Amino acid sequence: MRRWYGTCAGLIALSIVFLSAPALAAGDRDTLLSEPGVYGTFAVFSLEDGWGKQDLTTRIAHLTAMKGVVEQHRERIAIDVYLLRGLSDHGDIMFRIHAPELRDTQKFLVDLQNSLFGKFLETVGIMNGLTKKANYVPGFSDQMKADLKAASESGPTPYAIVIPIRKSAEWWGLDQDTRAAMMKEHTEATLPYLKTVKRKLYHSSGVDDLDFITYFETSKLEDFHSLVLSLQKVKEYQYTRRFGHPTLLGTVKSLDGLIETLAQ
Amino acid sequence: MRRWYGTCAGLIALSIVFLSAPALAAGDRDTLLSEPGVYGTFAVFSLEDGWGKQDLTTRIAHLTAMKGVVEQHRERIAIDVYLLRGLSDHGDIMFRIHAPELRDTQKFLVDLQNSLFGKFLETVGIMNGLTKKANYVPGFSDQMKADLKAASESGPTPYAIVIPIRKSAEWWGLDQDTRAAMMKEHTEATLPYLKTVKRKLYHSSGVDDLDFITYFETSKLEDFHSLVLSLQKVKEYQYTRRFGHPTLLGTVKSLDGLIETLAQ
Amino acid sequence: MRRWYGTCAGLIALSIVFLSAPALAAGDRDTLLSEPGVYGTFAVFSLEDGWGKQDLTTRIAHLTAMKGVVEQHRERIAIDVYLLRGLSDHGDIMFRIHAPELRDTQKFLVDLQNSLFGKFLETVGIMNGLTKKANYVPGFSDQMKADLKAASESGPTPYAIVIPIRKSAEWWGLDQDTRAAMMKEHTEATLPYLKTVKRKLYHSSGVDDLDFITYFETSKLEDFHSLVLSLQKVKEYQYTRRFGHPTLLGTVKSLDGLIETLAQ
Amino acid sequence: MRRWYGTCAGLIALSIVFLSAPALAAGDRDTLLSEPGVYGTFAVFSLEDGWGKQDLTTRIAHLTAMKGVVEQHRERIAIDVYLLRGLSDHGDIMFRIHAPELRDTQKFLVDLQNSLFGKFLETVGIMNGLTKKANYVPGFSDQMKADLKAASESGPTPYAIVIPIRKSAEWWGLDQDTRAAMMKEHTEATLPYLKTVKRKLYHSSGVDDLDFITYFETSKLEDFHSLVLSLQKVKEYQYTRRFGHPTLLGTVKSLDGLIETLAQ
Amino acid sequence: MRRWYGTCAGLIALSIVFLSAPALAAGDRDTLLSEPGVYGTFAVFSLEDGWGKQDLTTRIAHLTAMKGVVEQHRERIAIDVYLLRGLSDHGDIMFRIHAPELRDTQKFLVDLQNSLFGKFLETVGIMNGLTKKANYVPGFSDQMKADLKAASESGPTPYAIVIPIRKSAEWWGLDQDTRAAMMKEHTEATLPYLKTVKRKLYHSSGVDDLDFITYFETSKLEDFHSLVLSLQKVKEYQYTRRFGHPTLLGTVKSLDGLIETLAQ
Repeated sequence: MRRWYGTCAGLIALSIVFLSAPALAAGDRDTLLSEPGVYGTFAVFSLEDGWGKQDLTTRIAHLTAMKGVVEQHRERIAIDVYLLRGLSDHGDIMFRIHAPELRDTQKFLVDLQNSLFGKFLETVGIMNGLTKKANYVPGFSDQMKADLKAASESGPTPYAIVIPIRKSAEWWGLDQDTRAAMMKEHTEATLPYLKTVKRKLYHSSGVDDLDFITYFETSKLEDFHSLVLSLQKVKEYQYTRRFGHPTLLGTVKSLDGLIETLAQ
Repeated sequence: MRRWYGTCAGLIALSIVFLSAPALAAGDRDTLLSEPGVYGTFAVFSLEDGWGKQDLTTRIAHLTAMKGVVEQHRERIAIDVYLLRGLSDHGDIMFRIHAPELRDTQKFLVDLQNSLFGKFLETVGIMNGLTKKANYVPGFSDQMKADLKAASESGPTPYAIVIPIRKSAEWWGLDQDTRAAMMKEHTEATLPYLKTVKRKLYHSSGVDDLDFITYFETSKLEDFHSLVLSLQKVKEYQYTRRFGHPTLLGTVKSLDGLIETLAQ
Repeated sequence: MRRWYGTCAGLIALSIVFLSAPALAAGDRDTLLSEPGVYGTFAVFSLEDGWGKQDLTTRIAHLTAMKGVVEQHRERIAIDVYLLRGLSDHGDIMFRIHAPELRDTQKFLVDLQNSLFGKFLETVGIMNGLTKKANYVPGFSDQMKADLKAASESGPTPYAIVIPIRKSAEWWGLDQDTRAAMMKEHTEATLPYLKTVKRKLYHSSGVDDLDFITYFETSKLEDFHSLVLSLQKVKEYQYTRRFGHPTLLGTVKSLDGLIETLAQ
Repeated sequence: MRRWYGTCAGLIALSIVFLSAPALAAGDRDTLLSEPGVYGTFAVFSLEDGWGKQDLTTRIAHLTAMKGVVEQHRERIAIDVYLLRGLSDHGDIMFRIHAPELRDTQKFLVDLQNSLFGKFLETVGIMNGLTKKANYVPGFSDQMKADLKAASESGPTPYAIVIPIRKSAEWWGLDQDTRAAMMKEHTEATLPYLKTVKRKLYHSSGVDDLDFITYFETSKLEDFHSLVLSLQKVKEYQYTRRFGHPTLLGTVKSLDGLIETLAQ
Repeated sequence: MRRWYGTCAGLIALSIVFLSAPALAAGDRDTLLSEPGVYGTFAVFSLEDGWGKQDLTTRIAHLTAMKGVVEQHRERIAIDVYLLRGLSDHGDIMFRIHAPELRDTQKFLVDLQNSLFGKFLETVGIMNGLTKKANYVPGFSDQMKADLKAASESGPTPYAIVIPIRKSAEWWGLDQDTRAAMMKEHTEATLPYLKTVKRKLYHSSGVDDLDFITYFETSKLEDFHSLVLSLQKVKEYQYTRRFGHPTLLGTVKSLDGLIETLAQ
């Protein structure tokens, strides 16, 4: 494949590469993105100084190679890309990967870093988590369950925010009922924002120095700000040892859109 | 030497570049700087070692290109510049950007970093916030409202200070009245300094690892020091988990003034 | 030896090198891995940028030299290797070394870093510990002792996790009985996971800024996640000052498997 | 000026350069060093690797240029220099600058970093403060006031120590009388060391992430150690959130003495 | 390879260099290492990447120069060397220096860093302390005083451990008797290990961001581990704010032994 990339390097035709490597069928991707028992990884990279010093042809060749790696792995895992540069000081780009097994994610990220483009990437952070069935929802009222099921507004959601969370030892020492009551209050605080802020939760205890990774998408950042303000005021927030650090804020990009930005 | 450079700068004709890219009309800039619902971003950069090793012609060419990028984006967003070098160990220069949407800010900062000058910039920190209507002022007395409206003294305010703030979980757990009473005491402590210290507040919960970004301009740093001392003595300060870290202290510069310093 | 490597560099036949340097007899390795009084060291390295810029022949030559160093030392110490890249942001590769004396481990790691491959390694972290007889088990019930002896399921365990732990001063100030009662509760919480999660404990007080290094292997990461969740809920967890930081997650590799990945 | 430096570079006669740039008259310097309302800045730099690789002639040329910058600014501000290398891991050299306005200090440090020598300096830390009239002394007994006025022993004081301090929120929440009583106890603890340890205090709240910068000079480090031990035992110390971090320890140097060391 | 170097080392005749620079007479060195009022400095360095890329002849030439610097200063100060590489992630080598004045230590370390070898050293950490008469021993029982005087077993002690300590503000706020009683309990906990673990204490308050530097030598690391475990269980440990961070673990080397390792 490496040799093939070499041959390909002169071509500017980014979008016609790897036609033979179809991404996951839509259904498979939807399953990975919606079902419990799927591993989610957030990998943040910064671009080394050297990148900006490459000429345009080289940059495009390297990005083409990167696109090949992504598309090849998209047969088995779901890969989303984000531009952090300009909004976050923690990195330039972010990959969100959903896979049935973390070793599949590892294979992708190793291939990415071994690619010509990968030589210019510095790993800033990797966060791993796992999707699970909702813990506390079963005890909620029917009305609340219905509210939670109501779909978010469709349409583009240009902003994505990732906030890792670690709960205090006190939190885990509480009995299940006490935690459930607080999570009910927590969830009620989110209801006004269900329509404009999409959420997804990953469980990380043991597989990372975190308890949860919370992921959000929105076109209305001010709503997201109000949502977080509301969550800071419920009792459960008192049991949070780490909230953010880093808070990752970026824009959702298509692979081609990200490549276009990086090629400049 | 400074005068010599002034002469030189004119030769390269910094100020006649990009005449076709007019900045925001004064009214638009004023709106961005005074209205609620505007996003404010503070982007701090340090200059890489390589910058000082470029010859004067190259430095001026790169700075001219940077000026072009700034002026192009000034059509839609408000951009202020500051020199931190020599007063802060956190970076060399700072941009303050006001925009109706953070993606506009991102576009500017990506263009800035993709410019020839941008290759020499290392991102040290980015802080995002949002202007909002005053939370607590409605409950203040008429006299205090009048005091707060009194204009600061006009004239140059060479120093700018940025202090990010994170409140404790206990703060957010207090009820609104308790917080309002403490903010009244906080605001009273600021009254003696309204004339000589300008302030602006940004709300950051969720869009950064902060709750607030506080921004100050003054020509009398000792007054600003006294203001902060007073604020440390009110009860609300006990609920502050992070105050500064970093405290960014610099001097307000025009774009040409900053370029002149960087060209040396 | 250096010259010999040079000669060898052209050969791709990684696995036939150093036939004359037999590893520890199986029994010796088993002893090091199972007996008390053995020192365990976890050494994490990242690969410098330069590595990816070497051509394939050079990389293979260097990895062959590295293999030589490992096999030479395997006569006296037990060395296991792991791939962290893509799953952990703390490093690319990890060595776990068991030795009767830490100076034997030091000799290996110094030789490793002095090898041609070692020039591309940056030491990210080294953690030292010591295996000891179980502290609290003697007071457990016969049933629990029997449960703990039950063998884990055999079969490949692709994932390894290392979690360093530091207990609070309060923990060490408790009397032995109180600690023993809490450790009994802790151990009971682990019983459901004995079959699918292998564990090993190292004591580090004094020989590192830690009290314990906990090491896990599993093919079922979700079980490991559930195990950690359970452990966070027992009382003993309240006396943990540091849990992870870093949590190291990687995949178990054979030396040849690791070399194959690094040669790409 | 830059060209002039170039011409000068060949000369080894460090001490005869810039005779035409007189330093502050002794009286002005004394005023800056003793009066309230003066800004004090501590700027710490480390030397980049490249410095040691320059040949002697180049090093001397660069240091000559640096001397020129210092002497030029000494017309308006007071500049002291220190060698930290070998005693502190926080940097190699330190400048202490006293100026009526921080922008004068900024101009000096920008010129310093823009000089040929400045290309080899990495800014490690900058701390800003302000001299003020003594806060608590007015309430002290006449005897204590007299003790405090007693001059320190004259003679060389080779060691300088800088300790930044941040008080806790609790401290600032105490009423003025309570703080005054504790500061009296604090001051009494310093009396036995007045003769051998010189002190100077800078107020930093707001202009840095500190409340105070404490500066000491002594020829008897053991006395200084005893002084700090005594201060740690008074009640006021319980309200100190940060003491040092960094503690900067170095030796007082003349400009020529520092240049001589750096030229080696 | 090791053997080959052995041969080579003799050729360059490391040990006959600088015959004219005699070390301290044995008695002087013993005095520095045993008397109160002596300054002790621990300087930790890592080797830059470039070191490994020098050829053998250059490395030996540089190490020979380093040996000259050490031997020259050994006329006045006591210098011990340690290999940390492979056992500690905080640095590669450590110097322990005892001197009557810290400026003598500074002169040595400046000369070391100015040497050809010094260009490859990165300063990782410097810790300063002072030996003093035992604080609490006068109040101990005669039996305990006798126990403490009993000599450690002689023989090689290959391992050295350095643990910096900072006590809490609460500790210093306790009255002398309370502290003395706790130190008695602390000292009793050390008695079983006096024979196999040598100790030395340095006082650092004021001259570093520490209160104490504790230094240990042993050939039985497991005994040292048991000693630390015992010390963590006495009441005095509850008043320790920082214990280690870093804990430095290495092997004691002769200067020639260290040079041999670094020449590889």
